[in-house]
Formats: sequence, structure tokens, C-alpha cells
Amino acid sequence: MLKVYGDINSGNCYKVKLLLSLLGTPHEWVHMDILAGATRQDSFLAKNPNAKIPLLETAAGEHLPESNAILNYLAEGTAFLPAGGLPRARVLQWQFFEQYSHEPNIAVARFIARYLGLPEERKQEYLAKQEGGHKALRVMERQLAQTPYLTGSEYTIADISLYAYTHVADEGGFDLSDYPALRGWLKRVAEHPGHVTMQQFLPAG
Amino acid sequence: MLKVYGDINSGNCYKVKLLLSLLGTPHEWVHMDILAGATRQDSFLAKNPNAKIPLLETAAGEHLPESNAILNYLAEGTAFLPAGGLPRARVLQWQFFEQYSHEPNIAVARFIARYLGLPEERKQEYLAKQEGGHKALRVMERQLAQTPYLTGSEYTIADISLYAYTHVADEGGFDLSDYPALRGWLKRVAEHPGHVTMQQFLPAG
Repeated sequence: MLKVYGDINSGNCYKVKLLLSLLGTPHEWVHMDILAGATRQDSFLAKNPNAKIPLLETAAGEHLPESNAILNYLAEGTAFLPAGGLPRARVLQWQFFEQYSHEPNIAVARFIARYLGLPEERKQEYLAKQEGGHKALRVMERQLAQTPYLTGSEYTIADISLYAYTHVADEGGFDLSDYPALRGWLKRVAEHPGHVTMQQFLPAG
Repeated sequence: MLKVYGDINSGNCYKVKLLLSLLGTPHEWVHMDILAGATRQDSFLAKNPNAKIPLLETAAGEHLPESNAILNYLAEGTAFLPAGGLPRARVLQWQFFEQYSHEPNIAVARFIARYLGLPEERKQEYLAKQEGGHKALRVMERQLAQTPYLTGSEYTIADISLYAYTHVADEGGFDLSDYPALRGWLKRVAEHPGHVTMQQFLPAG
């Protein structure tokens, strides 16, 4: 059976949980407490030297890190990933945009605000993240004003990748009221059959 | 004919140039001067609202941004990209690693040192990038001590993605003498038939 090492509070981990739910794929979820150092233990570093979650363990025992690589692996041959050509490249376009232009701003602002309590020494960094985050949100808004999903008319793993941190962007101080097309998209994604919320999988206690 | 908007001094743009050269694909290269604001002009923003290069223009006039998405698009069906399954996902694993854990440290340190002349107000940021950059280089070294290329025995677009900024890491202050396997890999990549250097394509003047 597939095994996923992750923390459902992390948007990067939630991406994997969401796709597995949409596909109805049985899997084991191994909760990792990052703040308690779970990813820095030798047993985990042997599986992923880059010390990051999520990490997928295949039925054959092979390990694959990087949330978006995992999505591509799991979505191969399904309706969530076009078979090839420009449609498939568009999915990657948005996923690389997510990791470079979106996540380092929106996810990090959320981390500073929600997990660290916005300490004074990180205030300047937090404010810089606001600017970068809104720039990324404007790029998304522009696309979503033209098409219902990021790559066109279909819900793909590109949407899953961007949904993960966008739908909790308010926890990083981002007001989404100026992004009507984006808000419509958030609603469409959440209404998809098989959708799960982050909260549904929060560990007890 | 394919058209690429890029600046060959940018490692992200060089990735595309290198793959096109390895494949022997005819293309037109449109030089973009970022520092002079070429990517912020309306005519370019209409092609890529995220205002970044490289940008690919297909023969049909469609636009694809994000260097690693472009590599995947151009390498489809060639020896530089496995057809599917875990081997293909491994390529993406390294490309997402590049954009999140490698480029923001090594390329940005190089930019601060080489293009901005390491100004005092960015010294602290530069030093933080050294730490993150060496962490990424250690992850690469660990892999390359086991396999000749990042995903195994074959030269893929994952190697092109990581080669781009690693081979000029010294311009960002990174001493590679502690990374013997990585230096062997740099040499193997540079000796591949069809290889081009950044310098071969620097615009005149």
C-alpha cells in the first residue's frame, strides 16, 4: 500500500491528501511533527536527504519527495493530468509558478503569522511576503477571469497545487476580496466530488 | 519556428538554450534585457503576466513560461525525458528541488555578488544564501556519489536544470572543492555531444 509521510497542516502535504481522496486511492498516512524535528531524524533522512515532507513511499518501498512530483506520479493516466503536449506542460507551468512565486510568499507568510505568532524580528520579511503574494494572486486572478480552472476547462493537479495554500491565504494575512474570479475557483474546487478539507484530517490532540 | 525570449546570462534561460542545442532544434532567440525593464513592457506582459524569462513561443504562437515546464515540453519523446512512471517523476523531483531549494539560494547569491556587486545592505541575505546553497549542494553530492546523473545512469533534463546554476556557483561565492562527485558530474555534462556554454551565446557588446 502507498504510504505518505506528512503533516496535514502543511499545504504541501495537503495537496497529496487531496489528490488521493479525489482518486479514492487507499493509503497509509504517517504523521510527521516538523516542529518536533521528525524530518531531521536519521531514519527519515535516509528516506529523503532534503529533510522535507511530504514524502511518498511506493508499494515497492521506493521514496519520492517534492509535493508536485508526487502529484504528477499519482495522477498519471487519470483525468487530473493531460497525457502530453502543451496541456501537460501548462500543468507544470503552474506548478513551478506555485513553488517559486506563490509558496515562498503565501505559505511562508502564513507560517510566520500562524505558527510563529508574527514576531517583531520577522515583521519586515512578513511585509515583503505580502507584496510578493499579492503579485502571485494577481497572476492567478488574470487567468481565472478567463478560464474556470488554471489550465483551462478541466480541474487538474495544477489546481490542487495552487489551491493548497491559496485557500488558507487569509491565515497569512491575505485579503482575497479583490480577487472575485479566484474566489469562484476556490468554491468550484471545494465542491468537487471527493474533496476533503485540511481540517478533516487534523490529528487528534 | 520556435522562438525563445531570454537572456543567456540567466541560468534559467541557459537551460532552454542547452536543451535546444543538445536536440539540434532550430529556433530564434530573442534577447531580453531584464535590467533595462524588457520583461515589464506591456507587449511582453501580454505574453507572460508573471513578467519572467525564459518564455517559449511555439510555432502556433502559444506562450509557455517557466524554464522547467519548457524543458519538459521540448524533451517529450526524446532520450532526455523518461516516458512515465517513477523515472519520469524523479526528473520532476529534481526540478522542483532546483526551483525551491537550489535556485533561490545559489542563483540569488550569484545575482547579488555578480550583478549588484555585493552591496552592504544585502550582505546578510547573501550570507544566508550561502548556507542554503551548500545544503542543496550536499543533497546533490550525496546522489551523485551513487549515480553518474541525478536520476540514475542517464543524462536527463533534471541534469540540465541543476547544471545551469551549479556550474556558475563560484560566481555566487560557492567553493565546490568539497564536492568531488558533483565536480565529476559537471565535467560529464560539459563533455556531452552538442553541449554549449553560456559564453558561446553572449550577445555582442
